[in-house]
Amino acid sequence: MTASVFDHPILSGLLGDDEIGAQFSAAAELSAMLRFEVALAEAEAAEGLIPDASAEEIAALPEAFVADLDALKQAIGRDGVVIPDLVRQWRAGLGDAGEHLHFGATSQDAIDTGLMLRLGAVLSFLDQRLAAIISSLDGLETRFGTQPLMGRTRMQAAIPITVADRLATWKGPVVAHRAAVQHMLKAGLPLQFGGAAGTLEKLGDKASFVRTRLAALLQLSDRPQWHSQRAIIAEIGGLFSHISGSLGKIGQDLALMADKGTAVIGGGGASSAMPHKRNPVKAEVLVTLARFNAVQISGLHQSLVHEQERSGAAWTLEWMILPQMAIATGAATRLGTEVLQSIEELGDR
Amino acid sequence: MTASVFDHPILSGLLGDDEIGAQFSAAAELSAMLRFEVALAEAEAAEGLIPDASAEEIAALPEAFVADLDALKQAIGRDGVVIPDLVRQWRAGLGDAGEHLHFGATSQDAIDTGLMLRLGAVLSFLDQRLAAIISSLDGLETRFGTQPLMGRTRMQAAIPITVADRLATWKGPVVAHRAAVQHMLKAGLPLQFGGAAGTLEKLGDKASFVRTRLAALLQLSDRPQWHSQRAIIAEIGGLFSHISGSLGKIGQDLALMADKGTAVIGGGGASSAMPHKRNPVKAEVLVTLARFNAVQISGLHQSLVHEQERSGAAWTLEWMILPQMAIATGAATRLGTEVLQSIEELGDR
Amino acid sequence: MTASVFDHPILSGLLGDDEIGAQFSAAAELSAMLRFEVALAEAEAAEGLIPDASAEEIAALPEAFVADLDALKQAIGRDGVVIPDLVRQWRAGLGDAGEHLHFGATSQDAIDTGLMLRLGAVLSFLDQRLAAIISSLDGLETRFGTQPLMGRTRMQAAIPITVADRLATWKGPVVAHRAAVQHMLKAGLPLQFGGAAGTLEKLGDKASFVRTRLAALLQLSDRPQWHSQRAIIAEIGGLFSHISGSLGKIGQDLALMADKGTAVIGGGGASSAMPHKRNPVKAEVLVTLARFNAVQISGLHQSLVHEQERSGAAWTLEWMILPQMAIATGAATRLGTEVLQSIEELGDR
Amino acid sequence: MTASVFDHPILSGLLGDDEIGAQFSAAAELSAMLRFEVALAEAEAAEGLIPDASAEEIAALPEAFVADLDALKQAIGRDGVVIPDLVRQWRAGLGDAGEHLHFGATSQDAIDTGLMLRLGAVLSFLDQRLAAIISSLDGLETRFGTQPLMGRTRMQAAIPITVADRLATWKGPVVAHRAAVQHMLKAGLPLQFGGAAGTLEKLGDKASFVRTRLAALLQLSDRPQWHSQRAIIAEIGGLFSHISGSLGKIGQDLALMADKGTAVIGGGGASSAMPHKRNPVKAEVLVTLARFNAVQISGLHQSLVHEQERSGAAWTLEWMILPQMAIATGAATRLGTEVLQSIEELGDR
Repeated sequence: MTASVFDHPILSGLLGDDEIGAQFSAAAELSAMLRFEVALAEAEAAEGLIPDASAEEIAALPEAFVADLDALKQAIGRDGVVIPDLVRQWRAGLGDAGEHLHFGATSQDAIDTGLMLRLGAVLSFLDQRLAAIISSLDGLETRFGTQPLMGRTRMQAAIPITVADRLATWKGPVVAHRAAVQHMLKAGLPLQFGGAAGTLEKLGDKASFVRTRLAALLQLSDRPQWHSQRAIIAEIGGLFSHISGSLGKIGQDLALMADKGTAVIGGGGASSAMPHKRNPVKAEVLVTLARFNAVQISGLHQSLVHEQERSGAAWTLEWMILPQMAIATGAATRLGTEVLQSIEELGDR
Repeated sequence: MTASVFDHPILSGLLGDDEIGAQFSAAAELSAMLRFEVALAEAEAAEGLIPDASAEEIAALPEAFVADLDALKQAIGRDGVVIPDLVRQWRAGLGDAGEHLHFGATSQDAIDTGLMLRLGAVLSFLDQRLAAIISSLDGLETRFGTQPLMGRTRMQAAIPITVADRLATWKGPVVAHRAAVQHMLKAGLPLQFGGAAGTLEKLGDKASFVRTRLAALLQLSDRPQWHSQRAIIAEIGGLFSHISGSLGKIGQDLALMADKGTAVIGGGGASSAMPHKRNPVKAEVLVTLARFNAVQISGLHQSLVHEQERSGAAWTLEWMILPQMAIATGAATRLGTEVLQSIEELGDR
Repeated sequence: MTASVFDHPILSGLLGDDEIGAQFSAAAELSAMLRFEVALAEAEAAEGLIPDASAEEIAALPEAFVADLDALKQAIGRDGVVIPDLVRQWRAGLGDAGEHLHFGATSQDAIDTGLMLRLGAVLSFLDQRLAAIISSLDGLETRFGTQPLMGRTRMQAAIPITVADRLATWKGPVVAHRAAVQHMLKAGLPLQFGGAAGTLEKLGDKASFVRTRLAALLQLSDRPQWHSQRAIIAEIGGLFSHISGSLGKIGQDLALMADKGTAVIGGGGASSAMPHKRNPVKAEVLVTLARFNAVQISGLHQSLVHEQERSGAAWTLEWMILPQMAIATGAATRLGTEVLQSIEELGDR
Repeated sequence: MTASVFDHPILSGLLGDDEIGAQFSAAAELSAMLRFEVALAEAEAAEGLIPDASAEEIAALPEAFVADLDALKQAIGRDGVVIPDLVRQWRAGLGDAGEHLHFGATSQDAIDTGLMLRLGAVLSFLDQRLAAIISSLDGLETRFGTQPLMGRTRMQAAIPITVADRLATWKGPVVAHRAAVQHMLKAGLPLQFGGAAGTLEKLGDKASFVRTRLAALLQLSDRPQWHSQRAIIAEIGGLFSHISGSLGKIGQDLALMADKGTAVIGGGGASSAMPHKRNPVKAEVLVTLARFNAVQISGLHQSLVHEQERSGAAWTLEWMILPQMAIATGAATRLGTEVLQSIEELGDR
């Protein structure tokens, strides 16, 4: 079943992203959550809350553990989250250490922290991708910057500018978005760790020490639990949509320029009815991805209304939206680079 | 890679829908498009546009054809649509009949018509699912209808009503939505057939006859091409979102009632941190699915701005959104039935 | 203060709509609600629930009543709805009949029914506007239908079509939308009448008789209360957005055609920096209005999650969105007619 | 005509905001744009581009100028922007200096810069408002922080926490949003100044000097023109929606708590049908405003696809959305403070 273009065996060739998509596989998800549990055990052992031997046993779990996906699939239909049955499965692979796994934690700690670990990887990929786009734009500037181009406002010819002028308006936002990505990476994505209702009540006076250690082990920033405060999710989604939006503007411009003959884009798409055509497919898809993310961002803002200590409804909505926004943004950066690198001519002739 | 909760090996246990999801597999898609081509050949042969022998040879193709998915995946990255390479693959499996396959048609004819064939199946499933929900609501009315219930307006106690009063407000929209589904099925989803730019220019004076035959063969309604008029897509998406919205209202009510003790829902979900809890997971997820579709419907309306004879950007956006809305609606009807059937008590006590 | 472009003393010249906007003035709103109360009293008197004399006194109220807007403004900040203080003001203008005004009704009955009365007028205007657009399109077909036009798919030249082919794709949806408007008008917009919690508990066994009379008096369709079932709102909003979406497609095409020189639009806009330009402002604004409504429709679908007997939060959200969608649709029909009527040339030259 | 709740003579008592709304009056808008022109003349005179005498004459214009709103309203229906006719009106009030007004500038320079001047004021108000909310939350912490409260996850009782724990989750995001507002104010909102197509072509080698002076005079940050790069608009809108979203979470919690009896909110709303009720109107409306902005943010992200040197369609869409988001956010901060200050009891009893 392939409900999503990102996983589709065919459409992913157009709309998917292998590197960023890989961060949202079930395997990556399970692995990131177990990474949280291992680090938690290490932090709790260091604070004397669980035996060192248990932490060591738990540390060996990732190598041995094979999830029973069918059991997890069945359990989530009942529990709404994967963790209760997953903890059961993890514990089944442990001896006495089992009772020390997930000590003081709750579903959201493992799931949200696991997400942050993967989003860190996503941001790193985006950092590289945006660098590639900037580099492509610089290359175009070198090749075609001095070419004249009729500036167009409100879809109509305005006054002459140069290709460099147009390129500068494409590059500015990309540079700014890259700085935002780097700023977010540098500040560190936040650890989520709060226990059943956010108070880490089982950890007593060791709570903040464990949290600090845990954050350090996972290279996340240490901050109070945020399980009912979802601004970080909407913020990251907002950055994704800013990126795809700025690339969508480039795509829209290129599709218009291809029609005008002021851009010649190599490798264009075939038509089943019109063999003579060369469609600026990648430019168009940049517009698609921009509009897709512009739709989705609304859902992440709806999820800010997260009732009480934890909203199942609002949280589940994030799961349905954020991964797709990440992959759409990845695809946009991939296609952006590809289309810019395939430009053969730019400017009025 | 599982970007989407609907395909996810674990999360689909909560949010997926096997029957409706199956309509959006690559296999179902390829099969529906080939069904279009076979019927097209039959219609064109009947009108003397292609040889009968070719139509017969094409009719045998579905049994023999195995798609090269890798080649399609690679081609779509270039062409933006699957059809050019798929036509090539189909023709490779045919002899002289190859040139008569897809005659006079374009990508959108095969893709949009293939979609309509599958949406017809989706609507039939929804018809049955809504019947099951109505039946469940009737059952609850029989069991608990006379129980008193404090009516609540603006989240606060208002005046006493009965459980039957509340149930009537749940049932009304579901009955109306089912009527709308049946109306749409009875009117017939529309065939899309227009050729390269909507004029069926290759079919000459046989164009309308071929179209009428084609519609009859596929049990679709015969109407002029609509490849740049996307109201039908937004309309079907709107119906999906109406269904999930009305079920979301039931879910929201049930989650509130469970907290008040005025609904006891069996089989609730476990918590990793609080074994004593029984979470009304399915009720919550009905809210999630309602909000998800309420977000997505915006994208289908954005796609109404479909420039000129065919917009790659707007069309691709539909592909990213409509299948998910269908499956989300399917999941909502499935969960709706399940949660209603698991109700053990209803009303004030 | 003019937060909205529709009320803005300047911008309304571009984006407003006098006729449809007038339905959303405070005066029109107060008047429609009082019309509900007068008809309610008449229906209740006919059923012997209140004295005939009271109904007659109430029937005279619209002529005499002048609302204290400041008091209403202050009260709504406390009550969240206008009705409690408005009932107080209405009663202050009555003698003994005062206690018989609003008998058995609640805020939502007056507000939602008042809205339906005004939406009926809006739909009638749209019916006329869509007829004007169809007529304009027919006129263009007569003048330019046989002109050649390069068909464009995916933003690129495809194969030659005629202006008539393009016009047919513009007209089809408009005709369909007009039929939908007429269908809705013929079926009748629904009366809302349910009392405090939807059960009309104060009217005893006269409840359904009063409701039927009330619907007839107001020329609305008689159906059970729908105060927590908001499909009708999303449905009307959906129709608005379909209309503006189809006109947005025309606008987008015209803006592209103006740039290509395949449409010459008279009366275009001036630029402060470039006196030589003639901007296709109205065509562009059709795109704006389509995208605006495509955003807003999401909010009406979010409001389908309407908890329990009445949701203050979801209901208030409708007030913020539906009137604007109506006026945006009105503006789109106005601008659509204007831009089509100002076309001087159409087709390749 | 009052299409918008924010301007509505009655509903603005609930949903309006006098201070922030005032920034979006036509008068404030015209005044801000003239402020741009005056500063531009001063900067251009300082660089020797226009005579000092002209700049002085222009500097006196704000005191004398009275706009002909009817003419502007009529002109915008043709031009799509207010500036061409406004420049004509301004010049009519000047002698020879007229030709030096608006020298080298275009509509977008005046309109976008004028918007930024007003948004600066909006952000300053929000800074104060958020401070008031933080202070209210601190007050509640002092009064009720140690009270027990049943933590609720997934709408169900979880484990006991304290009122202070719940308050901390309300306060965290508000503090963060206030920091973001202050950061934005400190960095300075950006001047827009680019001329007809972004190249300031009429200013020759003085262009960057004029821009730097202009930014300094208007206390805006000096950066290259961004008239086709709309990230700043989506960014500010995003911040607005983050604020209203976090306040919506507080409102949702309070409405649920009021129903549970774990919050007693004074001054609640009356019902026309149920005099005994006290509705938590302001808490509910916080949810409404959060969902409203969550819908609107989608439109600002759609506007990132801003074709070529200036998109009339995308720009006009911003005008329809951003002011409403600002006022909705203002209303949310106002109502947030009011509802928090009216809390009489908090916590389980």
